Amino acid sequence: MVDVVGIEPRTGEPIGVAAQETAPEEVARLAEAALAAAPHLDRMGRTGRAALLRALADGLEAERDDIVAVADRETALGTGRLDGELTRTCYQLRLFGDVLEEGSYLEAAVDHPGDSPMGPVPDLRRMFVPLGPVAVFGASNFPLAFSVPGGDTASALAAGCPVVVKAHGSHPATSRLCFEVLARAARGSGAPEGTLGIVHGQQAGAGLVAHPAIRAVGFTGSVTGGHALLRIIEQRPDPISFFGELSSLNPVVVTPSAARERAADIAAGLVGSFTLGAGQFCTKPGLVLIPAGADGDAVVDAMAESVAHAPAQILLNEGIATAYARVSAGLSGRPGVRTAARGGDPAGKGFEAVPLLLTTSVADLSPEITEEYFGPLAVVVRYAAESELFVALDRMPSSLTATVLRGTGETALPLAVSERMRCRAGRLLFDAYPTGVAVTWAQHHGGPWPSTNSQHTSVGTSAIRRFLRPFTWQNAPQEVLPEELTDDYRGIPRRIDGQLHLPG
Amino acid sequence: MVDVVGIEPRTGEPIGVAAQETAPEEVARLAEAALAAAPHLDRMGRTGRAALLRALADGLEAERDDIVAVADRETALGTGRLDGELTRTCYQLRLFGDVLEEGSYLEAAVDHPGDSPMGPVPDLRRMFVPLGPVAVFGASNFPLAFSVPGGDTASALAAGCPVVVKAHGSHPATSRLCFEVLARAARGSGAPEGTLGIVHGQQAGAGLVAHPAIRAVGFTGSVTGGHALLRIIEQRPDPISFFGELSSLNPVVVTPSAARERAADIAAGLVGSFTLGAGQFCTKPGLVLIPAGADGDAVVDAMAESVAHAPAQILLNEGIATAYARVSAGLSGRPGVRTAARGGDPAGKGFEAVPLLLTTSVADLSPEITEEYFGPLAVVVRYAAESELFVALDRMPSSLTATVLRGTGETALPLAVSERMRCRAGRLLFDAYPTGVAVTWAQHHGGPWPSTNSQHTSVGTSAIRRFLRPFTWQNAPQEVLPEELTDDYRGIPRRIDGQLHLPG
Repeated sequence: MVDVVGIEPRTGEPIGVAAQETAPEEVARLAEAALAAAPHLDRMGRTGRAALLRALADGLEAERDDIVAVADRETALGTGRLDGELTRTCYQLRLFGDVLEEGSYLEAAVDHPGDSPMGPVPDLRRMFVPLGPVAVFGASNFPLAFSVPGGDTASALAAGCPVVVKAHGSHPATSRLCFEVLARAARGSGAPEGTLGIVHGQQAGAGLVAHPAIRAVGFTGSVTGGHALLRIIEQRPDPISFFGELSSLNPVVVTPSAARERAADIAAGLVGSFTLGAGQFCTKPGLVLIPAGADGDAVVDAMAESVAHAPAQILLNEGIATAYARVSAGLSGRPGVRTAARGGDPAGKGFEAVPLLLTTSVADLSPEITEEYFGPLAVVVRYAAESELFVALDRMPSSLTATVLRGTGETALPLAVSERMRCRAGRLLFDAYPTGVAVTWAQHHGGPWPSTNSQHTSVGTSAIRRFLRPFTWQNAPQEVLPEELTDDYRGIPRRIDGQLHLPG
Repeated sequence: MVDVVGIEPRTGEPIGVAAQETAPEEVARLAEAALAAAPHLDRMGRTGRAALLRALADGLEAERDDIVAVADRETALGTGRLDGELTRTCYQLRLFGDVLEEGSYLEAAVDHPGDSPMGPVPDLRRMFVPLGPVAVFGASNFPLAFSVPGGDTASALAAGCPVVVKAHGSHPATSRLCFEVLARAARGSGAPEGTLGIVHGQQAGAGLVAHPAIRAVGFTGSVTGGHALLRIIEQRPDPISFFGELSSLNPVVVTPSAARERAADIAAGLVGSFTLGAGQFCTKPGLVLIPAGADGDAVVDAMAESVAHAPAQILLNEGIATAYARVSAGLSGRPGVRTAARGGDPAGKGFEAVPLLLTTSVADLSPEITEEYFGPLAVVVRYAAESELFVALDRMPSSLTATVLRGTGETALPLAVSERMRCRAGRLLFDAYPTGVAVTWAQHHGGPWPSTNSQHTSVGTSAIRRFLRPFTWQNAPQEVLPEELTDDYRGIPRRIDGQLHLPG
């Protein structure tokens, strides 16, 4: 048995043994238990699973202090931030309870038999059914919201799919504690054994993705990690769905009017956003396009001033810290790149990162500069004219977000930027900062490769859609149909003969 | 230039040069033209594209006689069947016009700013936007409904995505004629140049899938062909979506009551279904589970009688004919497999297939027997008891359909079969035959791998969903938003602050 040991990022010292790497036979046992649980979880129905999700939220909240303390020790993200993260996760679990009760997500449709230009049409009734067991890969940077608890777990359970989580090695004790809390709450609300499982270790994660019982994978992590899992999936006799959130630069455009009107505000907002959580957000604004000239200078100067006064920050783990040091040095040394500001010196303890603001020109934009980097670093690119701005935008990789900071009432340039960026992002912000992703019905946290590789992702109510598939009953007797498709049911929105009807 | 030559299946003789294989530069030119057309096709809006789709249907119908004649010569499917296929395609094009006008497919959602347990939430507005150019691979077996015209092309254009079709080599003249008709109609209704393109040849198809401008692939064909395209996609720097419909056995269960009540009807229905279109339907019932004993014997005897009187049929092309001959010989010679009936002798001309009915037992079920085979062949598997039936069902690969033929008012066994098969199929039929797939709102034509690899497929109104992606505007001024997300718009169903509202 190989020990899994947590490391304290503030000191770099081991905390203790949190778990053991999961043996292949145990991975198989958990996957098969999940498969066995699937029909029972489905039969709990929408009401039963809504109660389950609320019980999970209650369970996490009851252990809030312990969870936040353990997570803070393993991640150094701070108790304030972690407290908020847990609140978000509980909110999301309860929101999926609402989603289940509302019932639109089933997309129930009934077509009565009749004639059509194609000839006679039979009785057809369709709704979504659960996909089966889902493997969820926890991310390092959100130990409570994209990890053992989080959007993937909440949405998969809501859909009626058992979950086996691959715990992230960066916070094994947090993962274990959260898992124990969730498993206890699940048992307490009558969920079948096998509804939740957890594995530790990279080999265990690979084994999980390869296991025949697993029907889909939810992953938040690096492009490299995503590719590794995709290769395992391609080798399955039955390739399954992979929902990956991989990499995002999140470019920000500051228009000339915006720079002129509110340089100081913008500088404060941008530095706050790219140093939030030590710059370890997938929505971190990594590249900012600022006009050349005095108005733009004022923004850059204010940003530099702020960064120069920022203390060194603690990163999540040694891998991220090493990469950050390498990237900081590499980018600073590139031709045409200038260091505008460097934050406070490191104290010499733990996984420290010195905040860094770099500037360059559109002419010097290279693929290295437009990659996503974790950590408190941003690159400002100065543009001389709108034409140069558009040249730069065309070189942006696809991202989760793109942002326009505009002048009061300005619409022409923001619209032009918006049209240019629509194919390269999934969320377009105006006069706001991309970090901070509210969980709502209209939220979308995705974008073309490499930001994500799927239509729906782990944030927002549409996350549930990933773990369902349509199923149609033809000429089925009422006794065989799910309740939602029977003639007299009126509890959810349904499409009857092509016409959408609200409940009641 | 390499000529693409059509072959007449009834004689095996070449018809003449239908096209040339498309050179790599021309593939690139078409993909780039599609990319350039994309924003203009999007700007035509729902109304403009609905008119486009109806114009395409009108165009095809105006040339119906020519199209059917050319397709019949290249496919030998018969003018009656091809006439129906064209009707279906035109119906589908017009149905997508209705889908656009109805507007639910956009999933428009507006969340107003406010407070939440997570803290303040911004103004968020989401709807689906087109993915960009789509590569569509025509299938051999539906020259008018899953080829140049068909569900992929109709749904991609409806979504606002330009289409480049890879013509199937089995009916190049039909492909060319349909393309010319569609391209002319598209121009006539104001669609931008580049809205439709066509390529011929396997290399051209591969080049299309690899081209950076292509954002998704729609494919109906073999597992081998699907894997080949998936390998190309995996090697792209930005892997794209692949929507494949690959292989389907479509098992049918005849319950003991059904066999007792209506042996002759069932036999006629089954033989009609598995020999329809010379057994070249993806929904062909390839395997039938029939009870052992006298009642089941009556079904099998009646099927055998019908097959023995069936004349040899003409297959689509030499590859299918060669495979059919090999498979017929191979399956007939397997241990435990008996030839119940063989159809009329071949006339010795063209790509002929002798209809074949084989029988075996659950004990002799092997993976070779549960594979999909094109052509007028079915395997009957006799089961001695319900427990044996369930053993057999657990060995079925995933299919597009599963069918239960039951006794009058019978529900217990049909329900048990239905629960067993839900994870292995996408459509479950009762007292009906799986060939014949109506295009409606509640239809689903998909299932777990290897039948399909995606949530939505090319049949039915949800086909449009494959070529869209969600996009969220945060804090956007009204001037920047699409009309459907503006405050005062009421023309389509929208979700406002989590609540679904109908138009008006």
